[in-house]
Amino acid sequence: MAAQMRDLFPICRSISGDGVRETLRDIGSRIPLEIQEVASGTQVLDRTVPDEWNIRDAYISAPDGERIVDFQSSNLHVMSYSEPVRAHMTLSELRPHLFTHPERADWIPYRTSYYERAWGFCLAEEVLDTLEHVEYEVVIDSTLEPGSLTYGECFIPGDDDDVVLLTTHVCHPSLANDNLSGIALLTELAAQLVHTRHRLSYRLLFIPGTIGSLAWLAANRERLASVVAGIVVACVGDPAPLTYKRTRRGTALVDRAAAHVLESGYRDARVVDFVPWGWDERQFNSPGFDLPVGSLSRSREGEYAEYHSSADDLDLVQPEQLEETLLALGAILDVVERNRTFTNRIPHGEPQLGKRGLYPSTGGGLPDVERLAMLWLLNQSDGSKSVLDIALRAGISFDVLAGCAERLLEAELLAVSEESRL
Amino acid sequence: MAAQMRDLFPICRSISGDGVRETLRDIGSRIPLEIQEVASGTQVLDRTVPDEWNIRDAYISAPDGERIVDFQSSNLHVMSYSEPVRAHMTLSELRPHLFTHPERADWIPYRTSYYERAWGFCLAEEVLDTLEHVEYEVVIDSTLEPGSLTYGECFIPGDDDDVVLLTTHVCHPSLANDNLSGIALLTELAAQLVHTRHRLSYRLLFIPGTIGSLAWLAANRERLASVVAGIVVACVGDPAPLTYKRTRRGTALVDRAAAHVLESGYRDARVVDFVPWGWDERQFNSPGFDLPVGSLSRSREGEYAEYHSSADDLDLVQPEQLEETLLALGAILDVVERNRTFTNRIPHGEPQLGKRGLYPSTGGGLPDVERLAMLWLLNQSDGSKSVLDIALRAGISFDVLAGCAERLLEAELLAVSEESRL
Amino acid sequence: MAAQMRDLFPICRSISGDGVRETLRDIGSRIPLEIQEVASGTQVLDRTVPDEWNIRDAYISAPDGERIVDFQSSNLHVMSYSEPVRAHMTLSELRPHLFTHPERADWIPYRTSYYERAWGFCLAEEVLDTLEHVEYEVVIDSTLEPGSLTYGECFIPGDDDDVVLLTTHVCHPSLANDNLSGIALLTELAAQLVHTRHRLSYRLLFIPGTIGSLAWLAANRERLASVVAGIVVACVGDPAPLTYKRTRRGTALVDRAAAHVLESGYRDARVVDFVPWGWDERQFNSPGFDLPVGSLSRSREGEYAEYHSSADDLDLVQPEQLEETLLALGAILDVVERNRTFTNRIPHGEPQLGKRGLYPSTGGGLPDVERLAMLWLLNQSDGSKSVLDIALRAGISFDVLAGCAERLLEAELLAVSEESRL
Repeated sequence: MAAQMRDLFPICRSISGDGVRETLRDIGSRIPLEIQEVASGTQVLDRTVPDEWNIRDAYISAPDGERIVDFQSSNLHVMSYSEPVRAHMTLSELRPHLFTHPERADWIPYRTSYYERAWGFCLAEEVLDTLEHVEYEVVIDSTLEPGSLTYGECFIPGDDDDVVLLTTHVCHPSLANDNLSGIALLTELAAQLVHTRHRLSYRLLFIPGTIGSLAWLAANRERLASVVAGIVVACVGDPAPLTYKRTRRGTALVDRAAAHVLESGYRDARVVDFVPWGWDERQFNSPGFDLPVGSLSRSREGEYAEYHSSADDLDLVQPEQLEETLLALGAILDVVERNRTFTNRIPHGEPQLGKRGLYPSTGGGLPDVERLAMLWLLNQSDGSKSVLDIALRAGISFDVLAGCAERLLEAELLAVSEESRL
Repeated sequence: MAAQMRDLFPICRSISGDGVRETLRDIGSRIPLEIQEVASGTQVLDRTVPDEWNIRDAYISAPDGERIVDFQSSNLHVMSYSEPVRAHMTLSELRPHLFTHPERADWIPYRTSYYERAWGFCLAEEVLDTLEHVEYEVVIDSTLEPGSLTYGECFIPGDDDDVVLLTTHVCHPSLANDNLSGIALLTELAAQLVHTRHRLSYRLLFIPGTIGSLAWLAANRERLASVVAGIVVACVGDPAPLTYKRTRRGTALVDRAAAHVLESGYRDARVVDFVPWGWDERQFNSPGFDLPVGSLSRSREGEYAEYHSSADDLDLVQPEQLEETLLALGAILDVVERNRTFTNRIPHGEPQLGKRGLYPSTGGGLPDVERLAMLWLLNQSDGSKSVLDIALRAGISFDVLAGCAERLLEAELLAVSEESRL
Repeated sequence: MAAQMRDLFPICRSISGDGVRETLRDIGSRIPLEIQEVASGTQVLDRTVPDEWNIRDAYISAPDGERIVDFQSSNLHVMSYSEPVRAHMTLSELRPHLFTHPERADWIPYRTSYYERAWGFCLAEEVLDTLEHVEYEVVIDSTLEPGSLTYGECFIPGDDDDVVLLTTHVCHPSLANDNLSGIALLTELAAQLVHTRHRLSYRLLFIPGTIGSLAWLAANRERLASVVAGIVVACVGDPAPLTYKRTRRGTALVDRAAAHVLESGYRDARVVDFVPWGWDERQFNSPGFDLPVGSLSRSREGEYAEYHSSADDLDLVQPEQLEETLLALGAILDVVERNRTFTNRIPHGEPQLGKRGLYPSTGGGLPDVERLAMLWLLNQSDGSKSVLDIALRAGISFDVLAGCAERLLEAELLAVSEESRL
């Protein structure tokens, strides 16, 4: 994951353009990826796909020709979707187009203007302070023309038609945690899923934020009924503890699975309620779709000082943080994969576990966790409670319970319920 | 409000009689007020309107003619509804008719005997201690004869037939917080409502406690279905923090409105569950009526040391406390007035606020409270949640949300739901 | 209770055999008791009644003939259900059959092997440490042969057919708290119930753990519908605070009754959720039966250091602890006996209590607890809430409320609801 992030870091991405295409090519070299192009002007729900933006160069240079602000040194220097400019102007004329970081004089902020034609430069406050009242040459060598919006889809079929939707945004330029971390995490997860057998099908979307998820939703409305769970992944590599943000429904399978995994295995992790801002979960959880899509991150948007600035660089994302997030995501998906509801086939009194080799023959001591797990499963499995429900009630890990459920199923003490996966 | 309280303080009120009439005349000089007279002997629900009580004078005088206890110096000295007495008696004979404050030797307590014929004097313990075993002249120059019960009704029509019921008791003699404060507050509120346009109709009752609300309920049973919210107001001027007492139902609109207003604006305020004692909310919340009527006060009955004693005087009620209660009551009624339920007209994905002038065009920063309010309204408005529900969920003030809802309504992003006001 | 415990302490009980019969004979000398014998080999639900076990003697003796471990000094020395042994063996051969306490070197542990043929000795670790590598004589003079399982039933009829089920286990040897305390408590309770009139019928079971309750359930399936409440009683004499364990349903009448009694009268008492281990409540709460049977104890199984060891002796059980548990159990049953649901016959406004002699005629003070209880009963009695529900809501003791309900019933202010007992 660290290597892929290093490869992708220099690329200037936005919500459209060749930077996204180059990024998707890199992802496509690692996992099966279908590239979708949606033409500028296409109506997607309440929005229209904008013109495509590309940029070759941009700078502000002093009368002596020195580039004071230079796109070549950092693509954050140009406000994303800046229209082309080629002019000489005084500092007073230039000033309204300059943006600095509100708190740190040495950081370059990240700004965008997707839906209103404008142009701007982002620079460190301490550089702005050196500008003098002379005439500057101002160049943004960009194009903003009909083209298309690009996103990538990786579909990994499972035994069932039920789909888990995993998405991450690919529209940010040289920002590491937001969101090369999410791109690297889903790429790695997909690479693993390709080589394992699983019940559920997985659809991973590498999409420009907002307009990308809207475009996918608009094009896939008939597919949404098969989405049984989803997670929007972003900012998964910074040092903050893991954060799971619930779906709008609040009690979907993915919400309970994430709550169980984080509570039982990640001491500092947070589970927070849905709020209608953040990343693409906003779109999936709009009231018309109301999909069971939560979000997994470390920091949430805006919660870390380096957010949307040049300080969100590769140093911020440590491999062990990415790795921990990947493990947690895998554990949550494992619960979603394996959760089932059973009915006890011998519900009158406790069945005799000892004669089936499921209980130690010498009595008098206290039962161990596997024995407790079996007793919980037998007692609660009346068709109304899933293994996950029992895990949350009993405070026993889903893993242990699911393993014991398999043994009780083999011993013909449990049967799978009709409506098994909730 | 302070001026009206000073005017009304000296009057000897009880549950019937000329003191109530004089009080209602004062109120009627300030706001439109219809006076109702209910004849003694009228059956009102489980009770009978008692004979009317009036009093001209009362005293206990020593053999030297000095008035030791004198109604002219404080109308608290006579137990309310005392039957007429004119006798000479020894201290031993008199003693069973004398009441003192259980905790403060210098305060005169307040006592009543509405439904059993009796007579008595209330006096300071330190005065009682000076009485000697001599013969006293005891005079209560009262009448207790068929007459009527009097209450006042102020109806202020609104655009709708839905009614907000506001009541306060007018039966206490010279006690300032309990309840000249409630009388002054509702008089002032009515004076304001008369001059403003409002959706709801308001019915304000200035009634003798218990028997007055029973008489009104008995006479207005066919009107009760239009009562959408109500608040019993009393003890609204003492220094204690604001207290809202929930309706019997516990989750009525007025309960949620009061909880939101007090939680978001009044740090020390309390919201307490319904209990079947207190003021007239007891009658409105009896199981046969079960009206959505809560109660707003500062102290609740019995919670302040001066309660039902001569220390509950004008000094206890400070104008800024009355004013704060009036503002809070207004804010609660404002929520009840303005609460509506909407549906998002573009529920699939987030509508593009920017192109409608509702969102700043430069991206990258975090949204302000108005933007958050709009996102909450759009996300939650599926016809099942009112603006107040969203305020309680989002922790954003109703005011901000209601204002943003208007803008979204104008932008045709929201529509008013059929069953809009809950 | 203490005397009965002393009488029963020396007897070697197990899940079958003459020790149980002798114990039941003692109980039967104090209360009416019907003895049931269930033949070995009988199928009871998922289990089979095992052969009957009896033991006369057992020891390990050294080459010099000294009994190093001797059943005559403590019946805990032999693993319960040990098959007969008569052999000479080395310490290495003997060692796998020796069990010590995991934490205390001076205590003899308690072990069983009911369903797998085995034999063993339990001894103090400090005795085990003295054994040398010599040849020992090992004798267990037991029989394990077809016979029967024995349990006792005490039925005390009430006015109704509704049954309260009270059970305690009789299968443990010389262990005082677990469970001579339970045996003595239920014997004493039955002796009291025989002499009092009560609405409910009581069925008390003195049963071997697990197999005993399964045998009773198998033989009485058509009777289970009449069980309106039940409590499994065990470990009721140790110094720990009272503990009530809820039924699987969690909100049964007995659960709410126990919560109210313990919360209002026993400061340190605990009410804990159902878990599928413990005593015979496991069987009654299996999903096929799902009976409203909770459990009352002081410590729960395994919670006290002396649990299942020779230190669980008569010194651990103090009379005042037993007595307190008996009082609490009586109070819980009293709530179950007396709980009813009423409807207010004068639900519109408060009925006038004063004219019915239920309220003091002099007003102005605050009401006492009986007056509050009446107001709560009148306000809440709409047919949906029982006296117990009102007790839990109002924080007033069931006793006071039930007494006041009687007075309101006599005054024709309340009527008994159809479905009165919940």
